[in-house]
Amino acid sequence: MRQYSVSELLTEDITFPEVEIKGWVRTFRANRFIALNDGSTLNNIQCVVDFENFDEALLKRITTGAAIHVTGELVESQGKGQKVEIKVKTLEVLGDSDPEEYPIQPKKHSFEFLRENAHLRTRTNTFSAVMRLRSALSYAIHKYFNEHGFYYMHTPIITGSDAEGAGEMFKVTSLDINNLPKNGNNKVDYSKDFFGKETNLTVSGQLEAETYAMSLGKVYTFGPTFRAENSNTSRHLAEFWMIEPEVAFMDLAGNMDLAEDFLKFVIKYVLENNSDDLEFLDKRQQDEDKKKPQADRSDMTLIEKLKFVTDNHFKRVSYTEAIDILRNSKPNKKKKFKYIIKDWGCDLQSEHERFLVEKHFKCPVILFDYPANIKAFYMRLNDDGKTVRAMDILFPGIGEIVGGAQREERLEVLKQKMAALNIPEEELWWYLDLRKYGTAVHSGFGLGFERLVMFVTSMCNIRDVIPFPRTPQNAEF
Amino acid sequence: MRQYSVSELLTEDITFPEVEIKGWVRTFRANRFIALNDGSTLNNIQCVVDFENFDEALLKRITTGAAIHVTGELVESQGKGQKVEIKVKTLEVLGDSDPEEYPIQPKKHSFEFLRENAHLRTRTNTFSAVMRLRSALSYAIHKYFNEHGFYYMHTPIITGSDAEGAGEMFKVTSLDINNLPKNGNNKVDYSKDFFGKETNLTVSGQLEAETYAMSLGKVYTFGPTFRAENSNTSRHLAEFWMIEPEVAFMDLAGNMDLAEDFLKFVIKYVLENNSDDLEFLDKRQQDEDKKKPQADRSDMTLIEKLKFVTDNHFKRVSYTEAIDILRNSKPNKKKKFKYIIKDWGCDLQSEHERFLVEKHFKCPVILFDYPANIKAFYMRLNDDGKTVRAMDILFPGIGEIVGGAQREERLEVLKQKMAALNIPEEELWWYLDLRKYGTAVHSGFGLGFERLVMFVTSMCNIRDVIPFPRTPQNAEF
Repeated sequence: MRQYSVSELLTEDITFPEVEIKGWVRTFRANRFIALNDGSTLNNIQCVVDFENFDEALLKRITTGAAIHVTGELVESQGKGQKVEIKVKTLEVLGDSDPEEYPIQPKKHSFEFLRENAHLRTRTNTFSAVMRLRSALSYAIHKYFNEHGFYYMHTPIITGSDAEGAGEMFKVTSLDINNLPKNGNNKVDYSKDFFGKETNLTVSGQLEAETYAMSLGKVYTFGPTFRAENSNTSRHLAEFWMIEPEVAFMDLAGNMDLAEDFLKFVIKYVLENNSDDLEFLDKRQQDEDKKKPQADRSDMTLIEKLKFVTDNHFKRVSYTEAIDILRNSKPNKKKKFKYIIKDWGCDLQSEHERFLVEKHFKCPVILFDYPANIKAFYMRLNDDGKTVRAMDILFPGIGEIVGGAQREERLEVLKQKMAALNIPEEELWWYLDLRKYGTAVHSGFGLGFERLVMFVTSMCNIRDVIPFPRTPQNAEF
Repeated sequence: MRQYSVSELLTEDITFPEVEIKGWVRTFRANRFIALNDGSTLNNIQCVVDFENFDEALLKRITTGAAIHVTGELVESQGKGQKVEIKVKTLEVLGDSDPEEYPIQPKKHSFEFLRENAHLRTRTNTFSAVMRLRSALSYAIHKYFNEHGFYYMHTPIITGSDAEGAGEMFKVTSLDINNLPKNGNNKVDYSKDFFGKETNLTVSGQLEAETYAMSLGKVYTFGPTFRAENSNTSRHLAEFWMIEPEVAFMDLAGNMDLAEDFLKFVIKYVLENNSDDLEFLDKRQQDEDKKKPQADRSDMTLIEKLKFVTDNHFKRVSYTEAIDILRNSKPNKKKKFKYIIKDWGCDLQSEHERFLVEKHFKCPVILFDYPANIKAFYMRLNDDGKTVRAMDILFPGIGEIVGGAQREERLEVLKQKMAALNIPEEELWWYLDLRKYGTAVHSGFGLGFERLVMFVTSMCNIRDVIPFPRTPQNAEF
């Protein structure tokens, strides 16, 4: 007798005289119908128990959350809602689940409650769907890059450099923190620390990825990055995953082509491979919307939003054009924006980005050629001396999803920009070396993975799209 | 005119009147033959310059490491060693490389020297081959699990728990380390730290992976893990990547089947997809071997060693049987082992593991049912009360490559084992919950990714198989 997954049984078109399955009870209805789930799919398989033939004490133990082992016949279902079901022959409880204690009862739980039970929350439909989609997106990302000649590289997590300045960093040490060695100035003597110097958790793998792009040609990272910023919002995590491709001999236009093609690929991948989970989350979002006032409801359903990305050409607009559009827009003139756009040079907020995508262009938008002083030092300065070859990709609902740039490949210009920001050349001697030996135009971008998962699942809080979120005052599990 | 990669041009069977390519000069011979590499493959494309038609000053700039842009005709090669070559029409230097300064000259460099130039070392054949193989292995791992119904999960890097005891941990803090807040006992007041408590870098994602296995069924992690151990050896890193699958309803026998199938798949994948790089490293190892005394040479070439894994059934042997074999072996009786095997209960060293694989069984070996007191607390206790359902997979040349176990699924037994080791239940309340609500047999294993890359590349120092190694006194780049 072969052991099957629920997913296998539900996609079989035939029936079997004998099947064996193990899973967890979702519900047990009328002492007869067990809805059994094993995580392989959102869907449960219905196991029909002829209760007269089973011990009453055994049936009492068939409670939500219990692990059971079922054998029986796979037959066409008599009831609605499923094609096949199992006519149970034998039934064994592998692990009980006391209904008085088990937190995940078959009712609606708040996401806050489920966050406190993050070790159990994938036992719900919503979180199992989200995490299956997270996994599918990860795979689609690797698949895309592999098929397009990229090499995956692991950039370091612990870094001795804090030069990028993308944000506050966590310190890493193996010193006895209650008994720190001090030097003459009564400062901590890092020469006694594990690495012999001050080290931090990385904020980005980009600079290291550039070193590999300038030898292997096309590379990407997909790893954890960190910010020690005390931002207790639904959009920030202290620990999150980033994807950062980097390509030699590619300019900003090529970078836009790559990012658009890549995003369309991964979203198409889940549309094609994860329809059960997407349809469930699509319906969930529509149900949630119905409870909201009209003005707060989504313009598009989840699946419409995904197709909005895959079916539209991404409109490419310079920052300067965008500022003109925004300055002359109704919400700006009527002061409906929280931040009113006045002058060229200001940073855009999510409300402006969303206006461009959702109201003005009605398609995903790529803004490019941003003012140099609101972007990082390593971005390629344009001939105008005031803008850089940066790009941001804007999506409906969330605004910026990707940020990228052509990198400054000219040694002297890069040195000047670093000097202006007081970044010592000794800190980034290896990064400068790339401009000394065989430098070339190259570009890349960064995608915050959790942003993408939020977009694809329509979850509103970033803590609900990563297994065990790390936020201020929270490192549980 | 389409821009090609070297890999594309070399695999084309036809010729083109006009091609365009960008890459880095490896060598420029006789003022005529440029060996051009762009990282897409180990192989260079030969670009033939009719030097009479080019400016002498330009040709002087065609030096090792320079980035150049070539257009020309793809023709059948006149010379040996390549099928096609480019008859150069135009030649442009994108980035110079001063031969007086460029560290990666076309000669043999020591691996120590290249480690100090880790940002440039993938510009050599050896390191580009190693890192392409590292990338291919990563992809094969994701592909295997995806095709077998596993979900990829990201377990946390920063952890508030230090219960697993797999080794010394790095501390993570955002406190001002030169001005630490203290509590009444003059200890650091972690309630003021970012997470409100003491946090560390993870040593393993296994315990968290178990939470997902017990809801999604089959999951795996692939992420960085850390050890703050002051081991300055060729086998230890402070930061390394681990793969940890975890499967519900799977016992130790299933775990062995999974690990064997998985290892064979990923090694077959690179044998099929990365033959250029493997053949290069195979030849490199043979050349190195020739310089060694007979006794120190490898028994197998690299490719023979890989086929030794894919073509043999992994022999399954209990720890107890293995101890008997080792105790009665020639090297033990003649005291040739550094560590002589005397009694049941001792831990095996790499020399013993290699003896079993290379001399005794002549195939990969899976040892199982180890003494409980040399293995971790979460492993399933056997009925004999003294062994646990652990397994280690042993490979030629390196010994242990995989360690795994069936997990202790019984709440009371697990609590007793934790109590014996003074692990507070409050620390792992969520891990215990898995045994309270719907517990079931489950199993998993861990594979140190760099160990696998070493095996597949025949590199001898673990610092040479990860882009930027983290070791005591070294966090450069």
